[in-house]
Amino acid sequence: MSDPVFLRPLAAPDADKGQAVVFGPDQALLLDSGRSLTPFTIAYKTYGTLNANRSNAILICHALTGDQFAASPNPITGKPGWWQTMIGPGKPIDTDRFFVISTNVIGGCMGSSGPAEVNPETGEPYGLSFPLITIRDMVRAQAMLIDHLGIERLFSVIGGSMGGMQALQWAASFPDRVISAMPIACAARHSAQNIAFHEVGRQAVMADPDWHGGAYYGRGTQPSKGLAVARMAAHITYLSEPALQRKFGRNLQNKESVSFLFTPDFQVESYLHHQGMTFVDRFDANSYLYITRAVDYFDLAADHGGVLAEAFRGTKTRFCIISFSSDWLYPTAENKRIAHALNAAAANVSFVDIRTDRGHDSFLLDEPEMFATVRGFLNSVATREGVK
Amino acid sequence: MSDPVFLRPLAAPDADKGQAVVFGPDQALLLDSGRSLTPFTIAYKTYGTLNANRSNAILICHALTGDQFAASPNPITGKPGWWQTMIGPGKPIDTDRFFVISTNVIGGCMGSSGPAEVNPETGEPYGLSFPLITIRDMVRAQAMLIDHLGIERLFSVIGGSMGGMQALQWAASFPDRVISAMPIACAARHSAQNIAFHEVGRQAVMADPDWHGGAYYGRGTQPSKGLAVARMAAHITYLSEPALQRKFGRNLQNKESVSFLFTPDFQVESYLHHQGMTFVDRFDANSYLYITRAVDYFDLAADHGGVLAEAFRGTKTRFCIISFSSDWLYPTAENKRIAHALNAAAANVSFVDIRTDRGHDSFLLDEPEMFATVRGFLNSVATREGVK
Repeated sequence: MSDPVFLRPLAAPDADKGQAVVFGPDQALLLDSGRSLTPFTIAYKTYGTLNANRSNAILICHALTGDQFAASPNPITGKPGWWQTMIGPGKPIDTDRFFVISTNVIGGCMGSSGPAEVNPETGEPYGLSFPLITIRDMVRAQAMLIDHLGIERLFSVIGGSMGGMQALQWAASFPDRVISAMPIACAARHSAQNIAFHEVGRQAVMADPDWHGGAYYGRGTQPSKGLAVARMAAHITYLSEPALQRKFGRNLQNKESVSFLFTPDFQVESYLHHQGMTFVDRFDANSYLYITRAVDYFDLAADHGGVLAEAFRGTKTRFCIISFSSDWLYPTAENKRIAHALNAAAANVSFVDIRTDRGHDSFLLDEPEMFATVRGFLNSVATREGVK
Repeated sequence: MSDPVFLRPLAAPDADKGQAVVFGPDQALLLDSGRSLTPFTIAYKTYGTLNANRSNAILICHALTGDQFAASPNPITGKPGWWQTMIGPGKPIDTDRFFVISTNVIGGCMGSSGPAEVNPETGEPYGLSFPLITIRDMVRAQAMLIDHLGIERLFSVIGGSMGGMQALQWAASFPDRVISAMPIACAARHSAQNIAFHEVGRQAVMADPDWHGGAYYGRGTQPSKGLAVARMAAHITYLSEPALQRKFGRNLQNKESVSFLFTPDFQVESYLHHQGMTFVDRFDANSYLYITRAVDYFDLAADHGGVLAEAFRGTKTRFCIISFSSDWLYPTAENKRIAHALNAAAANVSFVDIRTDRGHDSFLLDEPEMFATVRGFLNSVATREGVK
């Protein structure tokens, strides 16, 4: 194990990607596929200070295209951390009080081992030789990091969307190591429609001739057009129809009338183009394939004889589930299904459905009710656990 | 005007594409863009017999990727007509009683003038030199065909999805020529989310290097991969989440467990691939661009000072609006909005929302309540109009 380590630059070669740990051959990551990954790297960021009895650590799990820069500027984009409204001094996840650990998932492209990283055995980027991974594999790797940091139990595991799936998986895989968990805007399984949208995105990437069967590294190309199309399609699912209508409607882009051309006429088209273009500047196309696949494979009940409650039988973890009323990617009903399963497992669970028209991405937005819920839940667990 | 005419073969050179009319230089089609199309062709199919006083003609308008083969086998695919359950002897649109005219829209690729057709001025396919078109342009062209056939008034104009938009546009543009109209599963405008999905599809097509800026004809290529991705994304919007879950769920494709590869694991993936592949065999990519754009431009209220009711002020046409409860592409609320506008215009309108989980494509499926509604509505109008 050595630290710090080689980190592949995506767009900003000198960017500080924070901390990282390399796990050597003595600590291979055993994967659900039956393969193993060794050596492998976990890149992470921490915020706040670990207290003396190591009881105040919160693990933050990112969504599909997130990274470890939850509460500090992203070194690639220069933009604020993706949850900077949530995490920081005095914020709902208060770094004056808690030690926050945020990792880049295995398969990602911000320093943790993934398809864009160099395979130490060959000296070349992995590309498609990187093994397929699952949400459980991501969580296994995080657990090894937590071990490395000398933390026995996490005060909380918190995440939205795919991050919420990791929080559920943590509670299922390591019940004794998770005092509380907050899965937000997620599901315990990927639905047929969810899988369908991901497959459209993957096909868009793989249809791009610049993809080169995943071996585009070093060719001076990347499947930008395909990845942009994938992102555009996915982005629609992150918003709600009413919010799109309210925000853009049929408003035209700098025009009195339509152009009768195929260039963007409507503001919603330009907005989508922008989402596609900025995404390809910061994200690796193969990582997109790997991580979407991991999410598609996620079905927590299937790992427990098809009964979701069995994933949590006997758990001592305290849960707080948050959903958003206009989320059609992981609808309220799917979140409620998790709460029901936890009830069936006699777990301690609270469930909050927040009314908003802003869709799935609400978990990344300024949602006062979410902030109040997170703050209140952490306070109550802290009181019970005697964390100051 | 001459008849029959040259028809571009897409995949089956000897396919019988039915009837067609060429409108010569004396009958240019004036377009909303300010351009005009001349000469131009309308391909169509008829079923049944026009009665002596020419009072029993029903115009069928097809959806985005439909064609004139509504009630007879498609010459390209060999499959039954797309509304063969609806139209025929003794069927809800009874060809023993009515004379059914089904046209391929302008911009289409089944014989009517479109980007894949040869421009008579250059001897080359139009490609992107074909003018952009609107739903109103499609309807103008249809009206010229109806003139050509010597029909003064249509007993009914009926269509689903984009076909429903044409039915609405007919009633708005030619109120005295439309005795009744049945817009099914449609909207009076394309929403921001609708436009967004179409733009994803267009970007997928235009990102494909085999698109060649629309000039792929004669190169032995077509942007099949991009068009397949477009179709896959669109197809998800034609179904409902519950129906996808019921039909496919997380069922695996011929496997005991997932493959840990990027080949299709889930049945829903294989199903989508099949939808994409069969579509590119029968449809022209540029036509897809043109027709999606026409639909995006559709906003009937905008043509009438922003007040939808004004599109129908003083109308004598009798309307029957049908929506499907699980249609999230053109939801019940959008269809109801049309019914309300018609009420506000003091029009004669009935509105039926059919409960089903099968989503937008319900209008193409075996939906007994839809069949009964169509049959009943046509019967009542026929009684009133004295059509036997």
